[in-house]
Amino acid sequence: MAYNEVFQYSIISALMDGVATHGTPIARVLEHGDHGLGTFRNMVGEMIVLDGDVYQMKADGSVVHISNPRETVTPFATVTHFRPTTSMRATITGKADLGALLTRLFPAASNHFLAIRMEGVFRKVNVRTAGGQIKPREGMVDVCSRQTTHTFEGVRGAIIGFRCPQYVMGINVAGDHMHFITEDRRRGGHILAFETEGDVDIGIAQMSNFRLELPTEDDEFNQAALVLQAQGIKAVEG
Amino acid sequence: MAYNEVFQYSIISALMDGVATHGTPIARVLEHGDHGLGTFRNMVGEMIVLDGDVYQMKADGSVVHISNPRETVTPFATVTHFRPTTSMRATITGKADLGALLTRLFPAASNHFLAIRMEGVFRKVNVRTAGGQIKPREGMVDVCSRQTTHTFEGVRGAIIGFRCPQYVMGINVAGDHMHFITEDRRRGGHILAFETEGDVDIGIAQMSNFRLELPTEDDEFNQAALVLQAQGIKAVEG
Repeated sequence: MAYNEVFQYSIISALMDGVATHGTPIARVLEHGDHGLGTFRNMVGEMIVLDGDVYQMKADGSVVHISNPRETVTPFATVTHFRPTTSMRATITGKADLGALLTRLFPAASNHFLAIRMEGVFRKVNVRTAGGQIKPREGMVDVCSRQTTHTFEGVRGAIIGFRCPQYVMGINVAGDHMHFITEDRRRGGHILAFETEGDVDIGIAQMSNFRLELPTEDDEFNQAALVLQAQGIKAVEG
Repeated sequence: MAYNEVFQYSIISALMDGVATHGTPIARVLEHGDHGLGTFRNMVGEMIVLDGDVYQMKADGSVVHISNPRETVTPFATVTHFRPTTSMRATITGKADLGALLTRLFPAASNHFLAIRMEGVFRKVNVRTAGGQIKPREGMVDVCSRQTTHTFEGVRGAIIGFRCPQYVMGINVAGDHMHFITEDRRRGGHILAFETEGDVDIGIAQMSNFRLELPTEDDEFNQAALVLQAQGIKAVEG
């Protein structure tokens, strides 16, 4: 697959409906990208993919490097072979400021996708991590009602994220969706808020090709209603 | 591209918003499929792709074979390299009956895509053809308010179509979407209703890979609101 094309396995509405028992080997997802986000079987933890390495960031605060991507499956992931087309050192105070920068740099991209990577020192990063389903088919809103939040202070790390157009809501998360991991790869999660300390390095690429692979031979997926729950998605992924 | 993967250029919401001035060369779409549907610049006529040949079915009843696909653009098209995995001769009385057969043959495919080709003799086929925009950015609902309908009786011909899952509504048309062309390739359009005469030959394939290419360098597309108009899409494409 070429650079800066979105590849996605399954759809976010399937997670909303609790479809997370099966999935595809992470190694297959990595064929389509080295940069991305996702989750794991039974929604245990947050996935971040950076430079082709996959980490599982768990609710207990631990981070596991996935050393066996052929044997580990993901029920939902979004990746790209990231090659930033815009790179800069910038002052970005927080999440809203980062969002505004993206809009300013890519004013014509609201109907396209963006991939984002940002590295620097963070005064504070608030993340959440989903602990996983307590029963099969438990939906993401319920899973996230038990989410754990962590605050990391004075850490160096990386944000990996995507901005998706509004019209993919339900297939993916419309708007900005970002995960964080510390430079020592020992802490991280789904970003709720952050404050930087000094300038950061940011790389961005616009993407206009989107490829979706659906689960096959998966009764959970086949039987799910997959009705759009836009408010729910915003609540847990916004 | 492999067999039975959906390739789509632009999204149906862009047509709803009247984004139809530019597009991609039809030759580029044909790289991704030999079976499909779409429209032409300014929504002039209905597109059918069958065995890699592209026809423009116009409101005046004429059908044009596109002999220069490199020089002709489409603002929206959906295609696949079709290889039916289920083929049969069957009694299919009409559109609802065809829909019921698809559901019966592919009970686990409601969250996947289907490609359909049906050939036979038709007692009656009702089609509509969009005549095109009368001003730039005129939306599809307005364009279709002036659509022409034709009824063909006692003709042999082919139906080419797709069934898309509900969650792609706005990106494509959720549900069944079918175009028709006579065997002599001289009449056709977007199917509103049909009645067959005797048994027909039908081929179907389930598709679980979906690839979307968005218009780039297209201000009309970039500036369009692309807000989901599900009722409007159902009204003009259902």
